[in-house]
Amino acid sequence: MQVTGPIHFYFDFASPYAYLAATQIDALAARVDRPVHWRPILLGVVFKVTQGVPNLHKPLQGDYLRHDVPRCARRLGVPLHQPLASPFASLAAGRAFYWLDQAGGDHAPSALARAIFHAHWAEGRDMALPENVLDVAASLGLDRMAVEAGMNEPAAKDRLREETEKALAHGVFGAPFFYVDGEPFWGADRMGQMEDWIREGGW
Amino acid sequence: MQVTGPIHFYFDFASPYAYLAATQIDALAARVDRPVHWRPILLGVVFKVTQGVPNLHKPLQGDYLRHDVPRCARRLGVPLHQPLASPFASLAAGRAFYWLDQAGGDHAPSALARAIFHAHWAEGRDMALPENVLDVAASLGLDRMAVEAGMNEPAAKDRLREETEKALAHGVFGAPFFYVDGEPFWGADRMGQMEDWIREGGW
Repeated sequence: MQVTGPIHFYFDFASPYAYLAATQIDALAARVDRPVHWRPILLGVVFKVTQGVPNLHKPLQGDYLRHDVPRCARRLGVPLHQPLASPFASLAAGRAFYWLDQAGGDHAPSALARAIFHAHWAEGRDMALPENVLDVAASLGLDRMAVEAGMNEPAAKDRLREETEKALAHGVFGAPFFYVDGEPFWGADRMGQMEDWIREGGW
Repeated sequence: MQVTGPIHFYFDFASPYAYLAATQIDALAARVDRPVHWRPILLGVVFKVTQGVPNLHKPLQGDYLRHDVPRCARRLGVPLHQPLASPFASLAAGRAFYWLDQAGGDHAPSALARAIFHAHWAEGRDMALPENVLDVAASLGLDRMAVEAGMNEPAAKDRLREETEKALAHGVFGAPFFYVDGEPFWGADRMGQMEDWIREGGW
């Protein structure tokens, strides 16, 4: 077991709880002196294996989510566009992320992830649309045409699929989902517990 | 909206997270000076309406639960019998609870609930079996024959069904589930958030 390893942060851009987590994970990681490995995945692919259903679509639980996400956002002081967006296909966003991750350069893929989350969940811009993802990338100073070409390369598509499969192999069944030192934590509401686990070296 | 109302604590005796919550709710309620209304329900009936599945039976999520419940118990210093029991029919336990609730007298139904939770989850005694529920009731000083007769009365059966239907009408889709001042909180991992909500009067 690694004792000072990174926090692996698995998420789908389409998860509102992953958005909330994304606004908190950097500060948490800084407090416990760990790097964060951002790992977008496709929950739709996960749900095919687990027979899962988006919480927003579940009877009663969907209503709770529509009440709870804004409540959590208010508590955290995090901006949230309402009404909440429906689950959407985050393929373009995930592919752009992994293209940037592999391309390297001056731009951190995590900065792109944060900007995509913000555009979708705080500003209500539909990140299912590749052109909107490209707008966000360009606003960060990335070369729009390079991102567009890159996200359509097989390498980016393969990587998103591989990371999703890797997540499944690690037992990831929802998002956000964290691994640190081999220990799994599911849910934005477990981030405090994860922080305590890291500080205290487990229980 | 009531501002100093009770904490409504909905649970199924068959939920390990409800057991963990049951070991913490009294201290929480005392800290914020609220009474607790213990309300056992039948999650199986809820799941028929919501097409829910016990988390323990879900692919991947079941494995996480088997890892997470003992981890949470260790953190809380709460005894837990392992391996974790499978979901079970908590009819007898719920009926005994509501019989006692209606019978009144010296014994608090919440004390019976705590003892049933403890017997099942800390001691590994199968609370699906009416005779085991009766043993627990008798160990608290209750008249075993009176409990046995009472839990088989239509009133106790009806009450358990009615409380489950009432919970569904309030949007309860899982357990533990809390309502306080009209505000819903789902999950043992939201108890800290609920406590903050009560203290701060909401956000």
